[in-house]
Amino acid sequence: MNRRKFLTSAGLGAAASTTLAAPAIAQSRPQIRWRMASSFPHSLKILYQGAEQMARRVSEATDGNFDIRVFGAGELVPAFEVLDAVSNDTVECGHSASYYYVGKNLAFGFDCAAPFGLTARQQNAWMYEGGGLELVREVLFDDYNIINLPMGNTGAQMGGWFRHEVDSVEDLKGLKMRISGFAGAVLEKLGVVPQQIPGGDIYPALERGTIDASELVGPYDDESVGLYEVAEYYYYPGWWEAGPQTTLYINRDAWNELTPEYQSIVQAAAAEANIRITARYDAENPPALRRLVSKGTKLRGFNREILMACYKATEELYEEQVETNDKFRAIYEEWRKFRDEQYLWFRVAENSFDNFAFTADARLEQQEDN
Amino acid sequence: MNRRKFLTSAGLGAAASTTLAAPAIAQSRPQIRWRMASSFPHSLKILYQGAEQMARRVSEATDGNFDIRVFGAGELVPAFEVLDAVSNDTVECGHSASYYYVGKNLAFGFDCAAPFGLTARQQNAWMYEGGGLELVREVLFDDYNIINLPMGNTGAQMGGWFRHEVDSVEDLKGLKMRISGFAGAVLEKLGVVPQQIPGGDIYPALERGTIDASELVGPYDDESVGLYEVAEYYYYPGWWEAGPQTTLYINRDAWNELTPEYQSIVQAAAAEANIRITARYDAENPPALRRLVSKGTKLRGFNREILMACYKATEELYEEQVETNDKFRAIYEEWRKFRDEQYLWFRVAENSFDNFAFTADARLEQQEDN
Repeated sequence: MNRRKFLTSAGLGAAASTTLAAPAIAQSRPQIRWRMASSFPHSLKILYQGAEQMARRVSEATDGNFDIRVFGAGELVPAFEVLDAVSNDTVECGHSASYYYVGKNLAFGFDCAAPFGLTARQQNAWMYEGGGLELVREVLFDDYNIINLPMGNTGAQMGGWFRHEVDSVEDLKGLKMRISGFAGAVLEKLGVVPQQIPGGDIYPALERGTIDASELVGPYDDESVGLYEVAEYYYYPGWWEAGPQTTLYINRDAWNELTPEYQSIVQAAAAEANIRITARYDAENPPALRRLVSKGTKLRGFNREILMACYKATEELYEEQVETNDKFRAIYEEWRKFRDEQYLWFRVAENSFDNFAFTADARLEQQEDN
Repeated sequence: MNRRKFLTSAGLGAAASTTLAAPAIAQSRPQIRWRMASSFPHSLKILYQGAEQMARRVSEATDGNFDIRVFGAGELVPAFEVLDAVSNDTVECGHSASYYYVGKNLAFGFDCAAPFGLTARQQNAWMYEGGGLELVREVLFDDYNIINLPMGNTGAQMGGWFRHEVDSVEDLKGLKMRISGFAGAVLEKLGVVPQQIPGGDIYPALERGTIDASELVGPYDDESVGLYEVAEYYYYPGWWEAGPQTTLYINRDAWNELTPEYQSIVQAAAAEANIRITARYDAENPPALRRLVSKGTKLRGFNREILMACYKATEELYEEQVETNDKFRAIYEEWRKFRDEQYLWFRVAENSFDNFAFTADARLEQQEDN
C-alpha cells in the first residue's frame, strides 16, 4: 500500500477526532532517508553488495518507510574518509574497515584486525559477547559521535602476491611491498619497505616491478583485479588479517532520531549482513582459488622462520604501543586476555578437527596405496 | 504508543472518509501471537536463551505487534517431537536440531551435522550461499510443510566424557557410549554399543558404570551437568559434530499468513540469532574449559588410528546410504562436493594461520629458553 497516501487520507478524515494522535503515528513509522557511504568500490562485490543487502532488509522490514541508499567508494566521499564523513554527519552512516583509520590511532585496528589477532569467529565472540563492541565504542567511537556495529568479515586473508619467492627473513630486507597501517609497521621492523598505493594502481606497479609484492584480500577479490597475471607467488596466511571485520558506522544524532523499532531493525540487519558476508566469502573463495591455480598461480606458505620473526616484531610493536598510547593500552589489555583464552580453546575441538578432517581424504588414499 | 487504541480512534474519526483503507492498515501491522517450542531445556542456556533473544528482537522490531513466546523442551511438546508439532501446526514454530530426526531419514543430519562434515563457518556458507538451505527445504522440509531457517551453531563439539582412556580401535569394542543417530551408526561399525539415554540420566549412568562414555556438547554446557564428577577423561574432537546447526522451523501456513514485512523481520532475527549463539558459545567455552581442567578433568585427543577408523566407517556409511536412500543421495552429492572444496580452501589461509598463531606464544617461550 502507499503509506504516505493513507496517512494523508486518515489525517483528513480524522480531523474531527480529538483522540487522533497524528504525531504518534508519525513517530511510529516515520519516513526516513539515509545515505550510506561505503569504503568499498563496486568491484569488491561481496562487501559492497553486502551493504546493499542490509539496506534492502531494512527497507523490507519497514514496509519501505526506512530507505538507505548505498554509495560506493568515492561516490560521496573518498574511501578512507568514511569515518570522518559519518562523524560530521555528511552522511548518516558508512560501511568501512576500521584499520583504514590507524593513522588516527593504531587502536582502530582492534575494531577490524590486528596482527596475530582474532579469527572471524573469535572477533564476533569478542564483539557480541566479550565486551569488545562496548569497549571500542567507549574508547574510540564516542569521540567521533559514532555508533559502531559489526557488519561483515572476510575471514582469514591471504598474505599477498609476490614476484619472487621469500624463503627467509633475509629475503624480506628491502622488499617493496604494498601494505600499510599496523602490518606495515610490523614488517618495517624486518626491513620491508611498505608502500602506500591505491588499489587501482597495484597491477601496473607489480607489472613494472616498482613494487615486489602486494597484499590484497583473498582469492575471490584478488582474481577480479588480475594480479595473478603480474605476480606468480600467492602467499598465505595473511597473519595481520586473520578475521578482519568491516563495520557499520552510524552518526549518533541520526541514530538517536530513529524510533526504538527502527534501531532494532538496523541492529538485526547489520548482524545478518555480518554473517552473510562471511558466508559469501567462504562460498566464493574455494572455486576462485581453484581457478587461480589453474591459471598458473603458485601457492606458498610463509615458513616458520618468517612467521616467528613477524610474531616477535608484532609483540615488540604491541609493547611499544602499550607504553605510549593510552587508547591502545585500554583496549589491548582486554583484547589480549580474550585472544589468549580463545587460542587455547580453539586448539582443542576446532583445530584438532580441522587438522584431521581437512586432510583425511588424502590420508585415506595414502593408506590404500600402501 | 498503544497501537490498537489508535486504530480504533482513527477508525471512528475517519468513518466519514471513503478513502480510509482500514483493512490495509490492519494488514500492515497485524497483531500476531506465536508459540515457539524449543527442543532445548532452559539449562542449555545459550540455545534456549538464543531463541528468546530472537523473539525479543521480533517484538522490538514490530513495536510489540508480533509476539513470539518460547517454551522449553517438554513444556508444550517433547524435545524430539518439535518437528512434528510444527508440521501439524500444534505450534507455529520451533527451535530444534535436525539430527534429532534422523530416525525419519538420515538426511536430516545435513541440516545440522554429519560425521566429518562442515564446520560452523562452512555450514553457514553452504546454507546461505551454497544452495544448502533451498536443497534441504525441497528434499526434506517441504514434505513437512515447514520453512527452515538456520538459527544457531555450537561450533565444533567435544568428543565426550570417558571413564577410561581409549588408545586404540580395540578399546572401542564393547564400549557402551551414550551417542545416537548418525554418529552412533558409525561407531557401531567399530564395535561401540550406542545407548539412547535422556540427558538427565547420563550422570547416574556414568556414575554407576552402566555406560562407559557419553557425548554431550562442549565445556560450557557440559560443566553445568557436572559430568566431570563421574568421568575423568574429556575427549576431542567430536568429529560427528564439527559445526552443528540448530534450526528455526516455521509452519508454512503460519508463515504465509505473515506480511512480507514480518517475514523479513523473522529472517533477519533468525540470522542474527545464528551468529550470536555461536558468538556466545565461543565466548563461554574457554573459561569453562579452564574451570573443568582445574577441577581435575583430563583432556585427551582421539589419536590418529581412531580418527582414521572412524573416517573410514563414515565413508562406508555414506556409500550405503547413497545406494539405498534417495533423499540422502539428493543432498549428499551436492553437500559432498561443497565440503571437499571447503576443506581444500580452509587449509590454506585459515588453518595455516590457526596452526601457527594458536601455539606461537609457546614457541616464543621455547626459543627464549634455548
